[in-house]
Amino acid sequence: MRARDLITQVPTVMVDSPVIEAARLMVERDLPGLIVLDERRTPFTILPGTQVLRLAVPGYCQDDPTLARVIDEAHADEFIHALGDLTVRRALPDQPRELPVTDPDATVLEVAALMARTRSPIVAVVDSERLLGAVTLNTLMTRLVGT
Amino acid sequence: MRARDLITQVPTVMVDSPVIEAARLMVERDLPGLIVLDERRTPFTILPGTQVLRLAVPGYCQDDPTLARVIDEAHADEFIHALGDLTVRRALPDQPRELPVTDPDATVLEVAALMARTRSPIVAVVDSERLLGAVTLNTLMTRLVGT
Repeated sequence: MRARDLITQVPTVMVDSPVIEAARLMVERDLPGLIVLDERRTPFTILPGTQVLRLAVPGYCQDDPTLARVIDEAHADEFIHALGDLTVRRALPDQPRELPVTDPDATVLEVAALMARTRSPIVAVVDSERLLGAVTLNTLMTRLVGT
Repeated sequence: MRARDLITQVPTVMVDSPVIEAARLMVERDLPGLIVLDERRTPFTILPGTQVLRLAVPGYCQDDPTLARVIDEAHADEFIHALGDLTVRRALPDQPRELPVTDPDATVLEVAALMARTRSPIVAVVDSERLLGAVTLNTLMTRLVGT
């Protein structure tokens, strides 16, 4: 079994799409994360669901739990509406990290190790910069435990 | 809106359950992760789905992508069956990390920041060491984007 045998087609977002649109797509399609494409439709980044959420959390709250606690409840509930038309590109953190991207010949063990290491429940399968589809944690685990 | 308003009941596993049982539960119930309880039924740890998968990936492959690639395909497909009765406790990494645990009064912003920071799509809501339930990424995002 190789990555090519585990591929599913998932909807993608463009790097200049609004964050709110990305968040809605993830919820509506019940996706574990999102593949973000650049203008050439090549994967620009892959975001685990928690990192799509992160795009929508104000920076001043992300690393300071006490700040998020003291903000009054009404304001906290409104934070996603304050995003306006902020794009995914502008909301992305700068730090480089290993992307969960692999090729169609990757073994199941290789995909599993990549998912575990990058903490991403979605891996993009790419061949010569062309996106073939995604392997999701659910698809991989289902095949592994044989249910 | 507080954590208490977002709680869902999720199945849990015991820290001395076999890893394979934990993996099956996650797949069968389509959970984003697992809450692991100790003997007193207090949360011992919370594992995002990718870290449940990690329990099942041989240690020598986790941080060495080239090793996972060279292992022959037949063996790679069998790795989950080699787990035997390895328990969650024995498979857990030792390194301490911030757990995605909060109290019922946490604001939605606080839960969102915790999920983003710990990269966990599941947060345990605990009151005086008693598990009240879980807030999942899907529940939180659904409420936030209002679909």
